[in-house]
Amino acid sequence: MTSTSPFTRPLKRLLPIAAWLPNYRKSDFSGDLMAGVVVAIMLIPQGMAYAMLAGLPPQVGLYASVIPLIAYALFGSSKTLAVGPVAMVSLMVASSLSAIAVPGSPEYVGFALLLALMTGVLQLVMGVLKLGSIVNFLSHPVISGFTSAAAIVIGLSQFKHVLGVSIPGTEYPWQMARELAFSLLDTSGATLSLSLAAIAVLIAFRKALPPMLARLGVSQTWRDAVARAGPLAVVVGGTLAVYALDLHQAHGVKIVGEIPQGLPSLTSPQVSWEATQKLAPAALAIVFVGFMESVAIARTLASKRRESVEPDQELFALGAANVAASLTGGYPVTGGFSRSVVNFSAGARTGLASILTAMLIALTLLFLTPLFYLLPKAVLAAIILVAVVGLIDLKTLRLVWQYDRYDGVSLLLTFAAVFGLGVESGILIGAASAIALHLWRASRPHVAVVGRIAGSEHFRNEQRHQVETLPDVLFLRIDENLFFANARKLGDLLINAVAQRADIKHLVLVASSINHIDAGSLEVLEDTAHKLHDAGVALHISDLKGPVADRLKRVEFEKHLGDGRIFLSAQHAWEALKDA
Amino acid sequence: MTSTSPFTRPLKRLLPIAAWLPNYRKSDFSGDLMAGVVVAIMLIPQGMAYAMLAGLPPQVGLYASVIPLIAYALFGSSKTLAVGPVAMVSLMVASSLSAIAVPGSPEYVGFALLLALMTGVLQLVMGVLKLGSIVNFLSHPVISGFTSAAAIVIGLSQFKHVLGVSIPGTEYPWQMARELAFSLLDTSGATLSLSLAAIAVLIAFRKALPPMLARLGVSQTWRDAVARAGPLAVVVGGTLAVYALDLHQAHGVKIVGEIPQGLPSLTSPQVSWEATQKLAPAALAIVFVGFMESVAIARTLASKRRESVEPDQELFALGAANVAASLTGGYPVTGGFSRSVVNFSAGARTGLASILTAMLIALTLLFLTPLFYLLPKAVLAAIILVAVVGLIDLKTLRLVWQYDRYDGVSLLLTFAAVFGLGVESGILIGAASAIALHLWRASRPHVAVVGRIAGSEHFRNEQRHQVETLPDVLFLRIDENLFFANARKLGDLLINAVAQRADIKHLVLVASSINHIDAGSLEVLEDTAHKLHDAGVALHISDLKGPVADRLKRVEFEKHLGDGRIFLSAQHAWEALKDA
Repeated sequence: MTSTSPFTRPLKRLLPIAAWLPNYRKSDFSGDLMAGVVVAIMLIPQGMAYAMLAGLPPQVGLYASVIPLIAYALFGSSKTLAVGPVAMVSLMVASSLSAIAVPGSPEYVGFALLLALMTGVLQLVMGVLKLGSIVNFLSHPVISGFTSAAAIVIGLSQFKHVLGVSIPGTEYPWQMARELAFSLLDTSGATLSLSLAAIAVLIAFRKALPPMLARLGVSQTWRDAVARAGPLAVVVGGTLAVYALDLHQAHGVKIVGEIPQGLPSLTSPQVSWEATQKLAPAALAIVFVGFMESVAIARTLASKRRESVEPDQELFALGAANVAASLTGGYPVTGGFSRSVVNFSAGARTGLASILTAMLIALTLLFLTPLFYLLPKAVLAAIILVAVVGLIDLKTLRLVWQYDRYDGVSLLLTFAAVFGLGVESGILIGAASAIALHLWRASRPHVAVVGRIAGSEHFRNEQRHQVETLPDVLFLRIDENLFFANARKLGDLLINAVAQRADIKHLVLVASSINHIDAGSLEVLEDTAHKLHDAGVALHISDLKGPVADRLKRVEFEKHLGDGRIFLSAQHAWEALKDA
Repeated sequence: MTSTSPFTRPLKRLLPIAAWLPNYRKSDFSGDLMAGVVVAIMLIPQGMAYAMLAGLPPQVGLYASVIPLIAYALFGSSKTLAVGPVAMVSLMVASSLSAIAVPGSPEYVGFALLLALMTGVLQLVMGVLKLGSIVNFLSHPVISGFTSAAAIVIGLSQFKHVLGVSIPGTEYPWQMARELAFSLLDTSGATLSLSLAAIAVLIAFRKALPPMLARLGVSQTWRDAVARAGPLAVVVGGTLAVYALDLHQAHGVKIVGEIPQGLPSLTSPQVSWEATQKLAPAALAIVFVGFMESVAIARTLASKRRESVEPDQELFALGAANVAASLTGGYPVTGGFSRSVVNFSAGARTGLASILTAMLIALTLLFLTPLFYLLPKAVLAAIILVAVVGLIDLKTLRLVWQYDRYDGVSLLLTFAAVFGLGVESGILIGAASAIALHLWRASRPHVAVVGRIAGSEHFRNEQRHQVETLPDVLFLRIDENLFFANARKLGDLLINAVAQRADIKHLVLVASSINHIDAGSLEVLEDTAHKLHDAGVALHISDLKGPVADRLKRVEFEKHLGDGRIFLSAQHAWEALKDA
């Protein structure tokens, strides 16, 4: 079974479970079982809460927590990633679907299936095409700004449940804040009290309980498990409170209501061309954000155990999970941050933990849904609220702003765009702003006139070091790759450098910091060499990096320099030109 | 009048005419007059032809050749740029307007005014905000691919006039090719004969006539003038042929028909919010393409006379010209490539040449429009066809492909996108592809293990040079800026480099090719330093560029490296670590 024949090797790459399941060690089982149970306890309330956030009936969140988890376990290269409904993706589902259907309506639920199918197919295709590196387009500050803003938007969206008020649907997040402010006077006292109690209990479970248990000598694993059981506790406590105090009938506290019992039936999303077109940007944004969140946490956890995660295989596995979600009454899923950490620290060793979680959720669907009838929505909102507060990331803003204003600007732009224009526009504007600022920076390269440090072969910036120079030779170092962002400026830059010094006969472009010259810039260099020649100045190039030099040789660029030459180093140029 | 008082200096910058007109030299007048006349002779047929290409009545092209030229002459920093209708922008006008109105209808003409207004306002605002460098986003290969494809699309769009057939409107250029193929059998013999004759005459004027005149001893200036008079000749000849042979009534050759006599009246574009939204992408694309074409030729011509062109001022002046076009019955204009070259070589010294051209066009509108009644559309189509053939640029494709596949791919992608999806999508996809390929390249940086060239302080790639190394120190040079495109790979890269060599205790990142480290990459470096530390390896950095080093100092980065250090150069690191 452990053979590595040419037949089984590709199979194991495509289907990682084929590699680990045959070699499953009994000693791993206790950890997988523990993790499976703890994650299920976390996922039952979260699944329902995130479905509510997405504007879907609570059972959809549970349906999305059965077969998709098993699909990921088959194909995923991470052994500890916990897939299922997550807050950020749920928010994106809500924002895209509410533009084309009424939340909670059958069409809305149908479109959620379609969106899961589109997301899944996109991920499968991108996985097969090995486009996993596409996440590189999102810079760290953009991700940070997006996450903070999305956390606030998610929090805002739950305030109506926390306060027990009804507000009209809004297009942009900032409008929701306004509507909430207007409805503050309608707050339901019973609902708010219940919410605050739930929040207090959730915080207590996280912060106060573990140290108490530690003093009682409870082991780390159990302390962690208890700390994560807060949501389950408030679900049970909240339901009992509604029952005991008759909060629903007598005080108008909103409850989850009837959840159909039984496993999800096979569903087929209604594929309509019109809806597909309308949902395409959302599907793309969900692929981006979902994949990013998933790979980030999967890598972090894998590196702790010196395991590895294959981004392309991850895309494929998430795609399989989303297609599974679309066929079994779910909605888009991805690897969740906090649940994966819990899965890992509760002892998950293999994907079996996820399979066990899925089986427990299935049992819940079969037997326990009647128990959720009186579950108050305010409690689910409290669970979301406490979960997302930790995502607001001011530390990165402070650090980034101090280190690099450009990065700080793209962080703030992303934040503002999410809040002002919504999550999908936000992530796109964020990505575009980071790229635009990168190009803008590249369009204004740092340029140094360099000279030789006496007695050495080192050429350094004459403004930072004591250097010697030649009277009629100017050594100019451009600290940037030469490509379209600065191609048009390049010519001006070289010509201006000479224009300021009438006695110059040779201009040496020191290319030690240039890792790439694109075709357009090459043309500019050639043009500039001609112009400089007319002004009696020869343009030389020195210190070309190997790959750049190879490429210039391919088009015989030295010939195009006229009376200019290509020198191996600035020192060689110095020797050759000092008596010229 | 030549004072440079604090009051007049800003005026002269905003209104360049205020600088040159008061100092106008009589000796410049003959050149300006000659150029003004030659360009007018060229512009009359071209203006009508390009208006037809844009789906507008012929007089609109003439209206766009009066006040907009004067507006540009007031504000433009180029003294020889010939503004007016151009092929590429006309094509973009056609493709965007035909989606929302019927070509030639009053609404269509009204939307053309709105589009000119939007283009103009955008350019004015961008000029004031000094956003001229935005054209840097378009790489040379993208521009080349776009121009070639647009030339073919323009040519295709004229074939129906050349053949004298009617084809239904199409959404994408490739569909037009299909419709044309289907309609070949309906070709009008008379129209085709006329078209071929016109094409032959146009080519003869360009290629055959100048050498003949040269042999007759005619001066260069006059030869050039005659060579450019081809369009006028075919306009006159074609009109006479229609009249003499009764081609319109008897043979169904389509004619221009009645052109209203007189100057354009003041128009006010119908500004509707809905239309503005729909036209916004087109306006943006026209700003891009129009500005690019204009600045490229203005710069080329200015540099020949050691004059200078201010991109931001150019944006402002083109904006003024477009706003003028929208107020006087025109449509979007820009600086034309071939007309500017003619203007320059016919002797234009100042903007007065353009003002004279405008006056001649105005006289034409006042007195000569009845003469164009019988002008055949096939002749105008022939003029366009001959003009755009020269824009198809296979040379750049060949050169670029040879030098750099990435650039070649973005050229071909742009070409295919213009042809398959239309001009606006084409230019956007082109720009995006160049940026994506730039990031993709940056995400896979060249990495070299470097060693010391014996007896020197130079550190070079050990695969290219004979170098000495230290047994437990690895010097790694990464030839790329560290930013979001490669931040995620950076950690893997450093760790893999060490993983392959078990005996390494120090990893020195030689940063001589790194011009910038963004916030996210800094975090990756810090994480990686910790991971390497756990594996018993210290991460050092050497050869930081001044500005990069300054920035790292600001956040006291050396402290975050753990047991790693920042060295001035690889040589310093060598000395410090060789006995460690």
